[in-house]
Amino acid sequence: MSLADLLNLPGVTARPAAETRDYVYNHTMIRVKDLQKSMDFYTRVLGFVPVHRSDFPDAEFTIYYLVRQPLESIPAHDDDKARQQWVLGQSGVLELTYNYGTEKQADFHYHSGNSDPRGFGHLCISVPDVQAACARFEELGVDFQKRLSDGRMRHIAFIKDPDGYWIEILQPTPLA
Amino acid sequence: MSLADLLNLPGVTARPAAETRDYVYNHTMIRVKDLQKSMDFYTRVLGFVPVHRSDFPDAEFTIYYLVRQPLESIPAHDDDKARQQWVLGQSGVLELTYNYGTEKQADFHYHSGNSDPRGFGHLCISVPDVQAACARFEELGVDFQKRLSDGRMRHIAFIKDPDGYWIEILQPTPLA
Repeated sequence: MSLADLLNLPGVTARPAAETRDYVYNHTMIRVKDLQKSMDFYTRVLGFVPVHRSDFPDAEFTIYYLVRQPLESIPAHDDDKARQQWVLGQSGVLELTYNYGTEKQADFHYHSGNSDPRGFGHLCISVPDVQAACARFEELGVDFQKRLSDGRMRHIAFIKDPDGYWIEILQPTPLA
Repeated sequence: MSLADLLNLPGVTARPAAETRDYVYNHTMIRVKDLQKSMDFYTRVLGFVPVHRSDFPDAEFTIYYLVRQPLESIPAHDDDKARQQWVLGQSGVLELTYNYGTEKQADFHYHSGNSDPRGFGHLCISVPDVQAACARFEELGVDFQKRLSDGRMRHIAFIKDPDGYWIEILQPTPLA
């Protein structure tokens, strides 16, 4: 479908309002039960970097912003306020919310959104080579929701983070 | 907290593995009940542009990728495959999944993740001027979950999309 046809779909405002020009789709927030496990997963397996933390001790939670960018591109290593302003102007930020103590509750778990009641579906990481990435995830012992070889869509996989949220893995280009 | 301290948090891999260098946090997927209402909201209110559509008639759903980027930056207006490859390499993409016919079911609704069972929390749009943006949303009749004047955090607001998903609105810089 051409871009012109997409912009003619029912409901679509074809030319965004001038007021939205500098709006940035900044982040997606998910709650995580065990912060250390999630930090390990997102930094070691997927290469995210935590770039800001805010504590809310009265409400007993902490938030973290993570980006999938090279360390060298992250400014203000020693100036937290400047780095916070920077990250809030970026796109493609992941926010993890950790509510104190959830990791100590054996029967506590968050909801992935992919069983009833459904809603949120997944995050997606695009990679240069989906077969190499999936082989790496296998070596690292990552849980799969759907391997490349499962089902009809052989070009995408879904892995699961420590809370069971689904993460789609694909490559932009056709499979070799 | 300095970046060095963040990189020393429990669980954090301070230097991302070389294999993850070209991984891109590409998109977040949410399911929407009424495609036309969601397209209207995301394009008219928030300035998103739909840049790709894929139909899965056998499984009775369609997906759309939307970006918050100027029309001029979107390549391959008439080459759907090239535009699909482009969008799958971008960061800050929103995927809407529409399952056929849900809009005709009066009692059908998706789950925002912010009541039990909790999980996904919100999307966030950062804006140059949060007060101006919220005044605009009021004029447009957008539903608010939290106005700037509600509660203790006077620098952030939450609006709701047509399915009730929360969208945080903030500005990177301190309020004037």
